[in-house]
Amino acid sequence: MPTDTPTYDCIVVGAGLAGLVAARNLHRAGASVLVLEARDRIGGRMYGRALPSGGWVDWGGQWVGPTQERFCALLSEYGVERFPSPSQGRKVLIFGDQRYEFEGFFQGFFEGLPPGVPEGDWSDAIDAWARFDALAARLEPEHPRSNDLTRKLDAVTFAQWIGENTRTAFGNWYFSYMARAVGTGCAEPEQVSLLHVLWGHRVASQAEYPEAELLRGGAGQLPAKIAAAFAERVRTGEPVLRARQDGAGVTLETPRGRYAARFAIVAMPPHLAGRIAYDPPLPPLRSQLTQRMPMGTCAKLLVAYDRPFWRDRGLVGTGIGNSGWVELCADSSELAGDVGVIAAFVYGHRYHAWRQLNESDRRAAILADLARYFGDEALSPIAYDEADWTSDPWTGGGYTAFMPPGVWTSFGEALAAPVGSIHWAGTEVAERWPGFFEGAVRTGEAAAERVAALL
Amino acid sequence: MPTDTPTYDCIVVGAGLAGLVAARNLHRAGASVLVLEARDRIGGRMYGRALPSGGWVDWGGQWVGPTQERFCALLSEYGVERFPSPSQGRKVLIFGDQRYEFEGFFQGFFEGLPPGVPEGDWSDAIDAWARFDALAARLEPEHPRSNDLTRKLDAVTFAQWIGENTRTAFGNWYFSYMARAVGTGCAEPEQVSLLHVLWGHRVASQAEYPEAELLRGGAGQLPAKIAAAFAERVRTGEPVLRARQDGAGVTLETPRGRYAARFAIVAMPPHLAGRIAYDPPLPPLRSQLTQRMPMGTCAKLLVAYDRPFWRDRGLVGTGIGNSGWVELCADSSELAGDVGVIAAFVYGHRYHAWRQLNESDRRAAILADLARYFGDEALSPIAYDEADWTSDPWTGGGYTAFMPPGVWTSFGEALAAPVGSIHWAGTEVAERWPGFFEGAVRTGEAAAERVAALL
Ligand SMILES: Cc1cc2nc3c(=O)[nH]c(=O)nc-3n(C[C@H](O)[C@H](O)[C@H](O)COP(=O)(O)OP(=O)(O)OC[C@H]3O[C@@H](n4cnc5c(N)ncnc54)[C@H](O)[C@@H]3O)c2cc1C
Ligand SMILES: Cc1cc2nc3c(=O)[nH]c(=O)nc-3n(C[C@H](O)[C@H](O)[C@H](O)COP(=O)(O)OP(=O)(O)OC[C@H]3O[C@@H](n4cnc5c(N)ncnc54)[C@H](O)[C@@H]3O)c2cc1C
Repeated sequence: MPTDTPTYDCIVVGAGLAGLVAARNLHRAGASVLVLEARDRIGGRMYGRALPSGGWVDWGGQWVGPTQERFCALLSEYGVERFPSPSQGRKVLIFGDQRYEFEGFFQGFFEGLPPGVPEGDWSDAIDAWARFDALAARLEPEHPRSNDLTRKLDAVTFAQWIGENTRTAFGNWYFSYMARAVGTGCAEPEQVSLLHVLWGHRVASQAEYPEAELLRGGAGQLPAKIAAAFAERVRTGEPVLRARQDGAGVTLETPRGRYAARFAIVAMPPHLAGRIAYDPPLPPLRSQLTQRMPMGTCAKLLVAYDRPFWRDRGLVGTGIGNSGWVELCADSSELAGDVGVIAAFVYGHRYHAWRQLNESDRRAAILADLARYFGDEALSPIAYDEADWTSDPWTGGGYTAFMPPGVWTSFGEALAAPVGSIHWAGTEVAERWPGFFEGAVRTGEAAAERVAALL
Repeated sequence: MPTDTPTYDCIVVGAGLAGLVAARNLHRAGASVLVLEARDRIGGRMYGRALPSGGWVDWGGQWVGPTQERFCALLSEYGVERFPSPSQGRKVLIFGDQRYEFEGFFQGFFEGLPPGVPEGDWSDAIDAWARFDALAARLEPEHPRSNDLTRKLDAVTFAQWIGENTRTAFGNWYFSYMARAVGTGCAEPEQVSLLHVLWGHRVASQAEYPEAELLRGGAGQLPAKIAAAFAERVRTGEPVLRARQDGAGVTLETPRGRYAARFAIVAMPPHLAGRIAYDPPLPPLRSQLTQRMPMGTCAKLLVAYDRPFWRDRGLVGTGIGNSGWVELCADSSELAGDVGVIAAFVYGHRYHAWRQLNESDRRAAILADLARYFGDEALSPIAYDEADWTSDPWTGGGYTAFMPPGVWTSFGEALAAPVGSIHWAGTEVAERWPGFFEGAVRTGEAAAERVAALL
């Protein structure tokens, strides 16, 4: 069966940040585009809402850092202001039954004053960190290719490395927390390739402060701003189920219609891209890649209070800890605003156990954790949003996808390589800042540029 | 949107062996069934053809062993005869540039005479095997549950274990060949959990001789025999794209129609089951499992000759070796027949490299390998079939799916657990002989029994 006569130059599948940027750039270049989005809203993992009481919450991404250049440029263009994430005051670390208040930073690297855990525990983590950092520096700053070093690093789990490189429970947790909370993934350390974690640190490092700033009004306002210029070309509620291509173009089918174009840009996590039925079928390397690149596991909770009460106690609103459900939480409100918002995260095994609870127990569990970090006022929020990306079939996990062992070195080359007239975008495809907004912007721009050059 | 009024008691999705057995048993029990199959044929990985010259080839599974009771019972019922796989003569082992002829067996365990490799190499493999076997014996003969032992074994790759337990290149290859060629999987050792490989040996061991017998006329004849009793209830060319359920039943959508039933049995590899769009969405544990259970990598080549020429040289037609594309091949013809058939396998990395070749180079590469094993007559076949399951989107790899590290202990419980009115079947779901026909039969029977009890 031949494909239909192309109606559009390019159809973008997925109206997340990557897809919207791709569509925008093609539209600006004079190409006729159509965007097909499965959900009844645009934005994908860039999504939020304004709180009736003032302020806003971001269900997906919210932070930006100074070296995320393409995303910063986008923000400037749409007049979205950045402001420094709250940083005045002490952080809280809870390890086992100990609670520490400290003024330092140790997510992925260490800065400031150590939190006060026993010296042996701390030096264990810091010494191992130095080895981790040095090992990551040996990787090229691009998608890992297969060579002697990468094959070795890709044959073991991060859990294995942690076991061999730490001797204390604290050191062990420091790194497993990193695998769950920081950078690419949200993978339990036994699920993820050592190579993948090292690579995440190489190309998307906490040492570049990707959480340095927040966006006034929230990231969730951006999708509508970007789509405004081509709003009539965006169709929501249209999950693409099948994609047929021949030399002349691509025909895409949704439950509501059939759309034909010369090119398609599929802008979504790889496992979802793999769920579309392709005709001809995907090349086996690509098909098997999409079976091997799962999403990490997390939920984000947005808990709002009538005021940022933790500041009264000299706390910055950051909590990190191993003994409850919430391994990481942070102040996500403006310094000057009335409303206080804490963004809290539940990862990995903790997520799946927490998810078994009913709704009110889930909420109670989160609030109890926040009370341990910041005090009993945490028990009385004015709003509580559960952003459960792992239960959401159009994302399937969060923050992003990761590579189990043996995937980068055998299947990595299929991640970005176009298949006929189909090009791939989405933060998972990025070589720089994968898993972040920045990665999504970069791949959207790159895909649009490649397709524009072919039109 | 409520589901449609059920027309059937149960719809079986997937007409592989598991789905056909489930439908047959429900039909026999008096239930009204419908089978929806994506391909334009039934049988899934049970598929073959008769050769014009006499004899037959099986593109998918072909062997059966004495302890595969449910499958043997099925064969008896349909009057399909078993006969012993050819076993007279010497096998060939090629390791590097050495070629050995020997009368022993060492796929997954050792029996008979060692092949003649240097003593240090051989004892390295055999010593490690004893440790492997003892470790596997510590597992329960059911789906691995999370406990101290399984969590430890599930946190490392099989490659890691091989590296720590062998000291020679031969010992290393012995086990990595096992991961690719034997039992569950067809995974490269760096891709698969140590726990998964051990478990495969525990519940589907080569020591029970699963390749002891072949089927007269081939396995490919069975699907039509099973379906004969309810042929009008089987619809091919109907890939299920969406599944909606509520308390009253399940509605399934294909590009051609919409079908409603009280129950559904989805009988296919988990990653394909995950590609159906479910409403309500799958529970997150199940959804994430389907992202984490890739198919192994293999192609099967069926090469037929006007006679089994290798027998003239005292060879049994088994070749095992590390230096070409074909790591395993075996005589797949009757002792008394005229035609000689060799089934040859290309696995893992070798598969993906081989697949880059064009069709005639692929064929030439395979024939050259067979010539090294058995002599130059191998260069002149009368038929050459490429059964490339890894390129086939309705299978996506072969023989079966496997678990990367960290999957069994965190997601395993979602493998067999029904979701509302949807039950899961397929060889990947089996607790005994997963990956084999026997596993498919067992899960088909079990699913039918569970659904029948609910009707
Ligand atoms: C909880 C959480 C916190 C995060 N925090 C940050 C942060 O602070 N800073 C940061 O930079 N990044 C953060 N991220 C990551 C950031 O949100 C993502 O990198 C980015 O939004 C991804 O954009 P995308 O376009 O690549 O993919 P997505 O946003 O996932 O877009 C894919 C789109 O495709 C659609 N789709 C899927 N299948 C189909 C189909 N078959 N047909 C049609 N459409 C389909 C989906 O509905 C979706 O809209 C966070 C992510 C999460 C989940
Ligand atoms: C090369 C090879 C060699 C093998 N050798 C042996 C052997 O010697 N002995 C042995 O015991 N086993 C062997 N096996 C394994 C054996 O073939 C399988 O275990 C068995 O056939 C699996 O049956 P199944 O019903 O579970 O799955 P499948 O046979 O895969 O059936 C699944 C069915 O679902 C269909 N389907 C998929 N998606 C959809 C959808 N959305 N809608 C509708 N239908 C859908 C597929 O088209 C397929 O027909 C081998 C397998 C391979 C690939």
